[in-house]
Amino acid sequence: MADFDLVIRNGTVVTAADVSRCDIAIKGGKIAALAERLAGGREIDAGGLLVLPGGIDAHCHFDQPMGDGSEMADDFRSGSISAACGGTTTIIPFAAQAKGQSLRAAVEDYHRRADGKAVIDYAFHLIISDPNAQVLGQELPALLRDGYTSFKVYMTYDDLKLDDRQMLDVLDFARREGAMTMIHAENTDCIAWLTEKLEAGGHTAAKFHAVSRPQPVEREATHRAITLAELIDVPVLIVHVSGREAIEQIRWAQGRGLKILAETCPQYLFLSEDHLEAPGFEAAKCICSPPPRGKDNQKYVWEGLVGGVFQVFSSDHAPFRFEGAKGKRNAGTDAPFRAVPNGVPGVETRLPLLFSEGVMAGRIDITRFVALTASNPAKIYGLYPRKGTIAVGADADLVLWDPERRVTLTNALLHHNVDYTPYEGMELTGWPKITLSRGEVVCQDGQVTATPGRGKFLPCELPKPATTRLGTRRYV
Amino acid sequence: MADFDLVIRNGTVVTAADVSRCDIAIKGGKIAALAERLAGGREIDAGGLLVLPGGIDAHCHFDQPMGDGSEMADDFRSGSISAACGGTTTIIPFAAQAKGQSLRAAVEDYHRRADGKAVIDYAFHLIISDPNAQVLGQELPALLRDGYTSFKVYMTYDDLKLDDRQMLDVLDFARREGAMTMIHAENTDCIAWLTEKLEAGGHTAAKFHAVSRPQPVEREATHRAITLAELIDVPVLIVHVSGREAIEQIRWAQGRGLKILAETCPQYLFLSEDHLEAPGFEAAKCICSPPPRGKDNQKYVWEGLVGGVFQVFSSDHAPFRFEGAKGKRNAGTDAPFRAVPNGVPGVETRLPLLFSEGVMAGRIDITRFVALTASNPAKIYGLYPRKGTIAVGADADLVLWDPERRVTLTNALLHHNVDYTPYEGMELTGWPKITLSRGEVVCQDGQVTATPGRGKFLPCELPKPATTRLGTRRYV
Amino acid sequence: MADFDLVIRNGTVVTAADVSRCDIAIKGGKIAALAERLAGGREIDAGGLLVLPGGIDAHCHFDQPMGDGSEMADDFRSGSISAACGGTTTIIPFAAQAKGQSLRAAVEDYHRRADGKAVIDYAFHLIISDPNAQVLGQELPALLRDGYTSFKVYMTYDDLKLDDRQMLDVLDFARREGAMTMIHAENTDCIAWLTEKLEAGGHTAAKFHAVSRPQPVEREATHRAITLAELIDVPVLIVHVSGREAIEQIRWAQGRGLKILAETCPQYLFLSEDHLEAPGFEAAKCICSPPPRGKDNQKYVWEGLVGGVFQVFSSDHAPFRFEGAKGKRNAGTDAPFRAVPNGVPGVETRLPLLFSEGVMAGRIDITRFVALTASNPAKIYGLYPRKGTIAVGADADLVLWDPERRVTLTNALLHHNVDYTPYEGMELTGWPKITLSRGEVVCQDGQVTATPGRGKFLPCELPKPATTRLGTRRYV
Amino acid sequence: MADFDLVIRNGTVVTAADVSRCDIAIKGGKIAALAERLAGGREIDAGGLLVLPGGIDAHCHFDQPMGDGSEMADDFRSGSISAACGGTTTIIPFAAQAKGQSLRAAVEDYHRRADGKAVIDYAFHLIISDPNAQVLGQELPALLRDGYTSFKVYMTYDDLKLDDRQMLDVLDFARREGAMTMIHAENTDCIAWLTEKLEAGGHTAAKFHAVSRPQPVEREATHRAITLAELIDVPVLIVHVSGREAIEQIRWAQGRGLKILAETCPQYLFLSEDHLEAPGFEAAKCICSPPPRGKDNQKYVWEGLVGGVFQVFSSDHAPFRFEGAKGKRNAGTDAPFRAVPNGVPGVETRLPLLFSEGVMAGRIDITRFVALTASNPAKIYGLYPRKGTIAVGADADLVLWDPERRVTLTNALLHHNVDYTPYEGMELTGWPKITLSRGEVVCQDGQVTATPGRGKFLPCELPKPATTRLGTRRYV
Repeated sequence: MADFDLVIRNGTVVTAADVSRCDIAIKGGKIAALAERLAGGREIDAGGLLVLPGGIDAHCHFDQPMGDGSEMADDFRSGSISAACGGTTTIIPFAAQAKGQSLRAAVEDYHRRADGKAVIDYAFHLIISDPNAQVLGQELPALLRDGYTSFKVYMTYDDLKLDDRQMLDVLDFARREGAMTMIHAENTDCIAWLTEKLEAGGHTAAKFHAVSRPQPVEREATHRAITLAELIDVPVLIVHVSGREAIEQIRWAQGRGLKILAETCPQYLFLSEDHLEAPGFEAAKCICSPPPRGKDNQKYVWEGLVGGVFQVFSSDHAPFRFEGAKGKRNAGTDAPFRAVPNGVPGVETRLPLLFSEGVMAGRIDITRFVALTASNPAKIYGLYPRKGTIAVGADADLVLWDPERRVTLTNALLHHNVDYTPYEGMELTGWPKITLSRGEVVCQDGQVTATPGRGKFLPCELPKPATTRLGTRRYV
Repeated sequence: MADFDLVIRNGTVVTAADVSRCDIAIKGGKIAALAERLAGGREIDAGGLLVLPGGIDAHCHFDQPMGDGSEMADDFRSGSISAACGGTTTIIPFAAQAKGQSLRAAVEDYHRRADGKAVIDYAFHLIISDPNAQVLGQELPALLRDGYTSFKVYMTYDDLKLDDRQMLDVLDFARREGAMTMIHAENTDCIAWLTEKLEAGGHTAAKFHAVSRPQPVEREATHRAITLAELIDVPVLIVHVSGREAIEQIRWAQGRGLKILAETCPQYLFLSEDHLEAPGFEAAKCICSPPPRGKDNQKYVWEGLVGGVFQVFSSDHAPFRFEGAKGKRNAGTDAPFRAVPNGVPGVETRLPLLFSEGVMAGRIDITRFVALTASNPAKIYGLYPRKGTIAVGADADLVLWDPERRVTLTNALLHHNVDYTPYEGMELTGWPKITLSRGEVVCQDGQVTATPGRGKFLPCELPKPATTRLGTRRYV
Repeated sequence: MADFDLVIRNGTVVTAADVSRCDIAIKGGKIAALAERLAGGREIDAGGLLVLPGGIDAHCHFDQPMGDGSEMADDFRSGSISAACGGTTTIIPFAAQAKGQSLRAAVEDYHRRADGKAVIDYAFHLIISDPNAQVLGQELPALLRDGYTSFKVYMTYDDLKLDDRQMLDVLDFARREGAMTMIHAENTDCIAWLTEKLEAGGHTAAKFHAVSRPQPVEREATHRAITLAELIDVPVLIVHVSGREAIEQIRWAQGRGLKILAETCPQYLFLSEDHLEAPGFEAAKCICSPPPRGKDNQKYVWEGLVGGVFQVFSSDHAPFRFEGAKGKRNAGTDAPFRAVPNGVPGVETRLPLLFSEGVMAGRIDITRFVALTASNPAKIYGLYPRKGTIAVGADADLVLWDPERRVTLTNALLHHNVDYTPYEGMELTGWPKITLSRGEVVCQDGQVTATPGRGKFLPCELPKPATTRLGTRRYV
Repeated sequence: MADFDLVIRNGTVVTAADVSRCDIAIKGGKIAALAERLAGGREIDAGGLLVLPGGIDAHCHFDQPMGDGSEMADDFRSGSISAACGGTTTIIPFAAQAKGQSLRAAVEDYHRRADGKAVIDYAFHLIISDPNAQVLGQELPALLRDGYTSFKVYMTYDDLKLDDRQMLDVLDFARREGAMTMIHAENTDCIAWLTEKLEAGGHTAAKFHAVSRPQPVEREATHRAITLAELIDVPVLIVHVSGREAIEQIRWAQGRGLKILAETCPQYLFLSEDHLEAPGFEAAKCICSPPPRGKDNQKYVWEGLVGGVFQVFSSDHAPFRFEGAKGKRNAGTDAPFRAVPNGVPGVETRLPLLFSEGVMAGRIDITRFVALTASNPAKIYGLYPRKGTIAVGADADLVLWDPERRVTLTNALLHHNVDYTPYEGMELTGWPKITLSRGEVVCQDGQVTATPGRGKFLPCELPKPATTRLGTRRYV
């Protein structure tokens, strides 16, 4: 057993269930052994560090074509570097179908954008904006077989939204094939109506973004999504849940035995409507959808994380620069809120924020941290057991985490191509020290050490509960 | 690394989070290594088998002194053998304080009953029936330091019950010291009143046992227990939850962020009021408290297991023989229901029942099975990481499980000293093949291979969240 | 005081709050006095009878133009006679706008259909299917001033349904003007999708009507309607609520302080899915939307009546003949369920059914009966205090009710022009003996005594809470 | 008809259902006629005034023997005068059984205290503190026949509290006999425990009164009371409900179809914890149980009134003087909170407070005002139809109310014998002008015009649903 490629020594190894002190041996990019004492090959001393499964950011946007002339600041190069430096080893951005476009063409285009750039592995979710017979009958079945097993649908945004009937078609397909559907749940008509009234009254400043999408708008769409999933009897995952009222709907559904999964994001734990009260255009930095809610709402999001309503914690990284032409000011400085590109950056800060305020502050256990940020997304999206855990045979995607390091968060520390972070100035405890992807150190002490292009595309699997006969294997 | 004591080869290794194919090396009774291929020392081929953490039965009764002249049929010898043959490697029965008795004396007495008999390791919960100043101020702090870190209190049974004020005293102590309180939640006055009315009407047959303890009686006490814990701000665990109405209270509390843990048992998944309709005294076999509920209620218990309301699945093994003098007929054949000793046997059937109807039937994942039956009780009761998982450094308490074996359950298969099983005739899929305790095979193919007395007492730890600063380590 | 037109002697007089023994004097069609003993003019002896406010049927359809070639069997003549013979003295059917049609034109057309036919007074609700700027900006304000102060909108039916944005426009108008909006809440896309799937599978028999509109379809639309009303902050009334799940949504909203009013109908108390299991085309008799639910569901509808979820009990009388060409068989005998005209007759049986099974069976108080069937609809729709109660100054619209009369319900007893009643054979206790409209006996012992055309159109008022300053006068 | 004793002219007459303009004729102390225009006998012009049923204060304490040496400041003379001047015409105080005392003796003693003093009519509730066999088997049945048909039980206060078993005995009796049980729901053990801890920490100031009885203490007892009533299947009324959490329990129970009635009081609408923060002993003025809650809680109490959770609005008038020896300072100035007599005065301010902030502020309709303050208590406690409404045959207990009168509330305006009002300085709109009891003016413009002793004892009836067969007549 002396011929390992690498041994991680003396760390505290954490999975979604366990914390143990042991060494980890890596060979051929995979975890070969866990034991009290291992030797052979190169060694990294992880004394005083946690060894965690590298994070999986299951909701992030890079280099996604925009319909309004704006541009995402991060491509797969800067985006994957930023992710890796934040302790994330797998990203799952979205290959988005434009209405009328072939879904296969959208996937191929997105591969071209990704090719040769990523420093860590990546899979694709699909965004389905046009679920016509050709798409559902021909393209999608073939794409599933090729490893695209999850798709996102929108209940709002004019260029993406599906009506309820289209939603049912997609969910019906998902049930037949065993695929996973992610749902952006906001009521589009309500948003449009409120926006029109606000604009008619001259209320176009950034802070009115939140007014145009109040909690009942998210709650209603969440209830509707639950109903559609209930009718079809298929699991769905509600993405980026922001408000107490939507959380209550999800808890209600889960309590009735429905398989409703849910995700939340850092912006709903650490931002609030107060950030949208910033003077001038500054507030545009925090325009995202759903919007941050009242300060008081944050505790309900925490309760959802602690109590099991949420299975996934993602960034919804949507990188638009604050200065310059094609980012937040795409429609001009002081553009009305409706014209400001939506989204906040966060792929690199996701793990440090949750670790500091979740684990170190005593709200959640370190094993729950791993479940929310790595194991659960791996299981839900068909990457498990290759990704998302520390077990023999799994890819050696690891992050060596210094739990005591104190960091004042500033954008200068970050590696994304966005010129701000909404969390500027926050004092955090805990920070990633070394990130490994398939046994290779890709980032150490904030320095990238990997070559863009080494990251590989990951085909995702469908669950096969019938053949394993060991319970409902897929869902966490 | 060639000098292992034992290697488990080719199994599918399961924890509360992961399923992986790897070998397990054991040395000095502990897990020394996990790797794709391990050699050295004796080998057991686990091809086609699951390798699970041995079960922890956190709620079972053996050789507990009874106040009514009845006798438990199982002592630590037969009880631990039965447990081991059912795949369980740790039992946590109860050292019960009689009112007026010294708690330390009760513990010492119970050690005398256990000494030299068990084939697997054991810890003790305490039952506190008299939380006077001496007990709370002197005895209990010392006992905590000695490894008795959980205690059970009763809201019913005349010889055990505490009033709300005593409950508050106990919970206040638990909060100060960080101990875990288990609560039997039924409203004693309601039961007494209903029983008296039933008896006055001549309704003393076994089936009226359930009528004397309807769901609202359990729901009310559960709500009250939640309130007391909320006032003190301390976690508690509601044991053997049986009814939908109590489940709803617990879900409500958990949804409000309260740390309410809960346990259920096989009798609430597989028995129902129909079993109490059996003719003659036969129904006495299924008299336990809380009673089995309506057939329709079972699905709500399953939902609680699937949806996360329950963290622990225990047997509440309470062994009384059906025939003979000191068991169910202690007060005579055809005794009124109130005089029949309460309880059903189940320490050996707990895991096979849940595996077959939970995992194989597709209701729960195998990792959830491990969490409910081993990892969670280990964490909640301070035995983790020594017990409850498969990780480097943990005790090699393992069960090699044949997931495909078909078994028709009959009492003849079982090793307890009870003359019936309430699950007689059930067809199950999956059965333990080999059980190891600290690396020693204690049971194989239904044959005991260990010497009584090898089992050791396990002092339990208290959680130390302040020092680890890694989240709320203790609770699952 | 001797010059009354009529005195009702010796009755037990009931309002929505009170039961008292007194005489009622009528003059000029109005109630002039209530006293222990009144004399003067003609007398009717009401000894042994209840004297109730005549019923107001706030949801019924007569002679409404159909888009599919079918015809309603009742016009204002037969419909109003049937109503009167069932104890109802005011009907409020619907003037329905076809898409593209002028709302004013629809009202004028509907007046032509009503003119000269009714034996009792009537008001109109409006159905708005095309809330364009002309309708909301010009026509509707004028119509409100003319006494059309309530309108109904549909969330389903292709020729009537509004999308959420149109709903918001209508609700916004209702808020500005103080009008009342009635909502038919079923999710149209779900129904269409399910219907298509059922038809594709050859499941076109009548019983599949219920399968195409399961409870979640109603629940979802109810939740959505509540949300839209919450966003606008305006009261709405959900009509013909059928299922437990929708009831729970309404109760939840009411508990949060939202002004959500609700109506249910006899078909949800007395019919069930079993009726749709009738052999052959027989089941078509009970096709209505929402459909009758499971037998078990009826108790939840009763609880909603008893517990105050419902303020209004209407018939939703929709008269289609079973035999012949233009009724239930409009699309042919054995037509698929989707082509069968929706609706059941019930304007004459509404009060006897609720009286017998509600009041006499002890579920609701006689005052609640009056509130649900007369006072509340009068208040909600702006007819109070002219209609809906027995008070000095109110119209003398009265029904003298024999609470002890036993009746076996058969269609032969009824005066509508429909050839069946879904309640055929039911045994009822209590039946109307004499119905008076504005002091004139219009029906006595099942014989019509009034001339068609004597009934007058009733302009409805808007509430004026600001001027009365005596609380929120309008809503019950 | 010209020989009336009195005619009330030109008023706006209000019942729990109706508002109408008519004259009211009174003869022999009863309402003889309602008509547009009545003449004969003396006249009172009620032009511009509302004519309401005189209030029924169903929860008030006068001259009740205290066990701690304190004394109530109001006897039946001052208490009934204060009530009358506030628009109330019936009071229902409590004949309280001391533990060990004969209930009959308690009633006789209380009659002696009442005899010859009251200016308005009164009934008695019983307080049962010792439900032994003699009381339940002998005394109580006889007392019911004599017109004492409601009783109150306490879940707290050492000298009054019943345990759950005693509660079941009382509820069982109530079910058999059809009597009404009022429940003071607070968990006595929790209060005692918290009080002891507070005192041990030196926290004895008045404001800690609220800390010793937090919302969960009331919520728990409310849930328990609901459970006991559910087991027995009998209606109960939870008195003086204060907190949102208890309200939610009651709403939950009502939504499940249980017959749980509830009462709230002015102190939970208009006082809050802020009042207990008053400096020095001043805060003792607002010590009552349950205590006023947080300011934010008031809206939930309002919602309960608006939404129908509450059927009764009473004062819980408990008159202790602030200065002097036997009131709030009974145990000394600056006595610890636990020794301060509980209660606030309010029999005279109850109606003006609710009218001003409820009706005039637009929260509730004037008919709901009448229901909550007069009709519902009359019906629930067996005084209807003699009291609680304006209908032919009812007692002419009326209050002529000036809805526009602006009043600054000061204790100088009030007629009780207490030296403060907790509502000092509030600006109200609406005030009683003339109060009539059985047709006699007892108070006019704040001047008492009646002779003490004219008020009569009112025997209360039990409901007789079986004989009327007109629904569940008794409960509102």
